[in-house]
Amino acid sequence: MNATLTARLDEWRHRVEQELDRWLPAETVVPGRLHAAQRYSVLGPGKRIRPALAYATAETLGVPLDHVDAAASAVELIHAYSLVHDDLPAMDDDDLRRGRPTCHKAFDEATAILAGDSLQVLAFKLLASHPGLPPDPQVRVRLIEILADASGTAGMAGGQALDLAAEGRSLTLEEIEQVHSLKTGALIRASILMAAHCAPGLDAAGRASLGEVGAKVGLAFQVQDDILDIEGDAALIGKPVGSAAARAMPTSPAVAGLAAAHERVRELHAGAAEILARHGWADGPLADLAHWLLTRRH
Amino acid sequence: MNATLTARLDEWRHRVEQELDRWLPAETVVPGRLHAAQRYSVLGPGKRIRPALAYATAETLGVPLDHVDAAASAVELIHAYSLVHDDLPAMDDDDLRRGRPTCHKAFDEATAILAGDSLQVLAFKLLASHPGLPPDPQVRVRLIEILADASGTAGMAGGQALDLAAEGRSLTLEEIEQVHSLKTGALIRASILMAAHCAPGLDAAGRASLGEVGAKVGLAFQVQDDILDIEGDAALIGKPVGSAAARAMPTSPAVAGLAAAHERVRELHAGAAEILARHGWADGPLADLAHWLLTRRH
Repeated sequence: MNATLTARLDEWRHRVEQELDRWLPAETVVPGRLHAAQRYSVLGPGKRIRPALAYATAETLGVPLDHVDAAASAVELIHAYSLVHDDLPAMDDDDLRRGRPTCHKAFDEATAILAGDSLQVLAFKLLASHPGLPPDPQVRVRLIEILADASGTAGMAGGQALDLAAEGRSLTLEEIEQVHSLKTGALIRASILMAAHCAPGLDAAGRASLGEVGAKVGLAFQVQDDILDIEGDAALIGKPVGSAAARAMPTSPAVAGLAAAHERVRELHAGAAEILARHGWADGPLADLAHWLLTRRH
Repeated sequence: MNATLTARLDEWRHRVEQELDRWLPAETVVPGRLHAAQRYSVLGPGKRIRPALAYATAETLGVPLDHVDAAASAVELIHAYSLVHDDLPAMDDDDLRRGRPTCHKAFDEATAILAGDSLQVLAFKLLASHPGLPPDPQVRVRLIEILADASGTAGMAGGQALDLAAEGRSLTLEEIEQVHSLKTGALIRASILMAAHCAPGLDAAGRASLGEVGAKVGLAFQVQDDILDIEGDAALIGKPVGSAAARAMPTSPAVAGLAAAHERVRELHAGAAEILARHGWADGPLADLAHWLLTRRH
């Protein structure tokens, strides 16, 4: 990662964490335990990749960052809620996340369910009423539609359902990519697409191109994550190596092999880079961030 | 219940069930099991009281019903999702709801969690993009804000958290009313308030008055429900009599006595009726529906 991108990632992470801290109710507000569980789940350590994609897209398009604070916060809230619910005993049954007890372990299952439910609500609330949003209410409505499509049964929740149904079964590479495009890709695409919709000068073709970039980066990100899960060093990525393999969830590198998975990431990355270059965005922060995400070693 | 109101309730229930059937994806759409769980949880038998309150408010204000189809559907989706999650083993651990297996019994826990999550998303999606909504995007934004406030930690989810925390403890009547105002009252208030925001001619004072009516009807509805839970006949209300008492959840009639609880319902109902009369809405469908809800015997 180049020094400039490192600095920008730190800045974007700091920015969205300030935003999240601002909008999550304090633990002193009733119901305190629920608010504590929300804050525990959102404000713990995290790379804030989805907010970074929103901010990088905004900078690429010349959109003021305060116009996308709501989108950046909303995607992180949806991501955080999905982790809380995915970790539940009835789902992936994980006790640890990034070295800390999962929400239902630190609190209790009922609180974790409610924390996830109410984090999702807060995401939509911010897209409706964040003071930094572009004033045109049609933009807010469009952002809410994009986030809803990315989060529901045609997006993240649908992907998680397919993922659970797939455990232990043999899937084709196409089926695996469908699951990953929904479960991980849809929200990453939404991070980019929501920022695109905050750019008043961008036409429909430009927005569609950024949607394509988001779909490619989103899928490639998951394949890269699965590659790192096999190749990675436990100390670097902070979770047991091969945990997905142990769960017998099919992944692209497990089915197609590591070499083919690396090639698939390169292909998707090249496709995204080509679209960005076509619009004159080859040297912008979004291209830099996509390059880092899809070539990272941890 | 008078014959006119009976007919209107049937009509409103039929209307919102058609809407819900239209917007819930078919079981043949992937992921089929998740869509089946959504439809099972929403389209089963139900009185559709919250949609009826939205439609009754619209008729009282002269708003075309298609302008409030989104609000009516959205409150029912939120209500249905809350029942799915409240029934989970980690929450109220109920196996039956209205004589049918609860969602996690008919499907499985993971599917029930995801069905609830994605029903909540669909509610916000409908408020953003339902074709029947008033065209002004500011109205959509306002409806989304109202539903988010009613569903999050300052509303329904917060009330459920307080309810779980209260089990087995002794609460004051004020504390019990706070829980009920959040857990049940907030969404009932939102049903009325969202319809009020679809009336272009209604001023801020009129909307505020309907918000007050909603708060009074919402709290009184829960007290009435708790009275019926003690007094009621199992065959009439379709669940074991005294189930809340068995769970040791404090209720108004259990703490204050049945006579005081009846008096509280009468007081809240009179307050709501007085506000409606002040605006010339005393003879409208909302007043009729409130009267029926707060004097019903089952």
